[in-house]
Amino acid sequence: MREIGVGIIGFGTVGTGVVKILQGNGDLIAERMGGRLAIRKIADVDLERKRDVEVPSFLLTADAYEVIRDPGVDVVVELIGGEEPARSLIFEAIRQGKHVVTANKALLAHRGKEIFEAAKERGVQVGFEASVGGGIPIIRSLTEGLVANRIRAIFGILNGTSNYILTRMTEQGEEFGEALKKAQSLGYAEADPRLDVEGIDAAHKLTILASLASGSWVEFERVYVEGITRITPLDIQFSMEFGYRIKLLAIAKITPEGVELRVHPTMLPKDHLLAQVGGVYNAIYVTGDAVGPTMFYGQGAGGLAAGSAVVSDLVSVAKRIMGGVKGKGLLFSEGPVTYKAIEDLVCPYYLRFTAVDRPGVLSKISGILGANEISIASVIQKGREVNGAVPVVMMTHGAKEEAVKRALEEIDRLDVIKDRTTLIRVEEGS
Amino acid sequence: MREIGVGIIGFGTVGTGVVKILQGNGDLIAERMGGRLAIRKIADVDLERKRDVEVPSFLLTADAYEVIRDPGVDVVVELIGGEEPARSLIFEAIRQGKHVVTANKALLAHRGKEIFEAAKERGVQVGFEASVGGGIPIIRSLTEGLVANRIRAIFGILNGTSNYILTRMTEQGEEFGEALKKAQSLGYAEADPRLDVEGIDAAHKLTILASLASGSWVEFERVYVEGITRITPLDIQFSMEFGYRIKLLAIAKITPEGVELRVHPTMLPKDHLLAQVGGVYNAIYVTGDAVGPTMFYGQGAGGLAAGSAVVSDLVSVAKRIMGGVKGKGLLFSEGPVTYKAIEDLVCPYYLRFTAVDRPGVLSKISGILGANEISIASVIQKGREVNGAVPVVMMTHGAKEEAVKRALEEIDRLDVIKDRTTLIRVEEGS
Repeated sequence: MREIGVGIIGFGTVGTGVVKILQGNGDLIAERMGGRLAIRKIADVDLERKRDVEVPSFLLTADAYEVIRDPGVDVVVELIGGEEPARSLIFEAIRQGKHVVTANKALLAHRGKEIFEAAKERGVQVGFEASVGGGIPIIRSLTEGLVANRIRAIFGILNGTSNYILTRMTEQGEEFGEALKKAQSLGYAEADPRLDVEGIDAAHKLTILASLASGSWVEFERVYVEGITRITPLDIQFSMEFGYRIKLLAIAKITPEGVELRVHPTMLPKDHLLAQVGGVYNAIYVTGDAVGPTMFYGQGAGGLAAGSAVVSDLVSVAKRIMGGVKGKGLLFSEGPVTYKAIEDLVCPYYLRFTAVDRPGVLSKISGILGANEISIASVIQKGREVNGAVPVVMMTHGAKEEAVKRALEEIDRLDVIKDRTTLIRVEEGS
Repeated sequence: MREIGVGIIGFGTVGTGVVKILQGNGDLIAERMGGRLAIRKIADVDLERKRDVEVPSFLLTADAYEVIRDPGVDVVVELIGGEEPARSLIFEAIRQGKHVVTANKALLAHRGKEIFEAAKERGVQVGFEASVGGGIPIIRSLTEGLVANRIRAIFGILNGTSNYILTRMTEQGEEFGEALKKAQSLGYAEADPRLDVEGIDAAHKLTILASLASGSWVEFERVYVEGITRITPLDIQFSMEFGYRIKLLAIAKITPEGVELRVHPTMLPKDHLLAQVGGVYNAIYVTGDAVGPTMFYGQGAGGLAAGSAVVSDLVSVAKRIMGGVKGKGLLFSEGPVTYKAIEDLVCPYYLRFTAVDRPGVLSKISGILGANEISIASVIQKGREVNGAVPVVMMTHGAKEEAVKRALEEIDRLDVIKDRTTLIRVEEGS
């Protein structure tokens, strides 16, 4: 049986998952692909750490370039993450004619374009199924399963940590900080959780998905990003009263006016399938012009789930090698991308004002909203006074972000407003 | 740009969808695959019917074999459904070295093994993404995206008609017959709805999914099948009181003792993601040993959704042709399949007895259940007497199907029992 040599750089959670899968399901996978994936080399800076998988010591090296240079390695799996040295290693692998599999969403979000250009030039494949949605085969589904479609919109719950925190805040009524501590104690959040809770990780992943959907690499810098750190149990409570759930959504809409890219806390109707996705799970809701709405759900993280995606890429690459494929890999158009700015967004808004409980306040707020052509769909004013102020919550009809921001600036300067107004965008979700 | 010739047999709903997609998104698809799908011939028995797509008349023929013989046709798309003449046409296409794309679940369920053997021998591909789950890329996800996994279980809502009917019965409280009529009036159900509401269509699709999951073609005849025709609003009401929803689930479990294959109304916890899938939508919940639980959701029918799947297969086949792939297609092991019989099933059961309202009845029923080692988890007895009887509903702990059937036979012979007892299997869903 033909063997395809695999070299792994980065022997952490995902690397261990990949090795476990190849050890445990190696025969099954070999039967399915008609060839065998053979691990030839594994590099990690820390070779002493105890891992719950055993590998012969001659496979291990501290030198990542040894993996790339190994003549028995056909595919280099990059699992160290971050920009450098991952970028240099991947380029060196491509230069040497090795296929690459990577889970590195940050690198792809920033350098995807040049990586794919280099790979195309050298005639090698770059697999990146594990970069978005853990074990969910979303990359393959977008590029192959839905290849017949003009993708209209993607709504993704792409960060398990944030989703876990919001789920706890919703179900247990916890404050953000409390829920974050719980996530950290369970290993769902890093000691430095900023990439997760500030929406950056989700934005990295959205950049990749939007690039696939639009056919051109979009720029990470063009994604509007807002995290979940300012969401309070009060907002969650009010959103539920209006029939919504708050999710950190990564949204890409491909419109005739341009690509809309944003990551922010979003109120979704409580019956929307995405609103039902709780805990550390990920889900990607994709609408295509032919297929209509679809959703893909699964574990967004974890060694075995991400390992499942890495191995699926290894099998694809191996099949291409064995089949003697001359064809091109993923094709991107070279065309420039037009972006739709966040200021031009039109959607309903949830606005929570912190106002003194005095006659005329409501009229002042709604007057300013009206002057900015923002019309109010419903209002809730209730609850006890805290520090001399009460929450006044409004749901608007569709309004332009620019106008909302302008109105809020004016409103927040009123002396009857005691704190910065909270704004949450609403999506009906299709 | 290289052209790949496509011949279509069957110009109905799905055929029209395929043509529409190739006309509307042809340039986009060509850009993505680096080649063009060109329709060379379309066959249908009815060439006069008005279709909402226009094709040059020289493409049309009433002779399906003309499509297959056309030297410009590289891929034959079979969309007529049913066993014959679809089977003969597909075999003839394979014999002539043409690749095949089909949406024919009934044929694959009965003849999949021989079709794939013939295709393998002749070195051609058979694409069948549209045979299960409409536009949902579930075939690709199982065979490629989750290739690293030992699939443990599949729970599928695979028949949109039945799901629509159950959704109406749940949300509107309608009777089965009434909901069916509504489905028919909306075009969601055929004039003869038996294939749908009796679970056969779902069983066809389950046969395909289970074959992919287990790696060997399973026999359609080994699927236990029970439809939704006996479900009443009363059962739906009670299931909701217990915190469940009733869905027609197609279930495959790959266990060390054998493959378990069954289609029947199933009570699922109301918070389970599958329980949230309403209307004509389909969803497939797949659990793999590495990836954990995943779910794939979308429209299970409709010309454009199924057309999206057909075109995704066309692109795959075209890429293989253009890439000069010599590799094998889908690999099945030749091993025999061990089946787990329905009698050996162990799960909790919902039992609704129609009993006279008289002291001692509950003790008689529970006595017989106890003698058969079936233990009761909870009981509801309420509601008005109808025709001298009241419903008594029990949820059991995990019990063996064989024992439950034996107990019910005995109970249904009691003179205090006025109607056949309703049994619904319960799944916790993971």
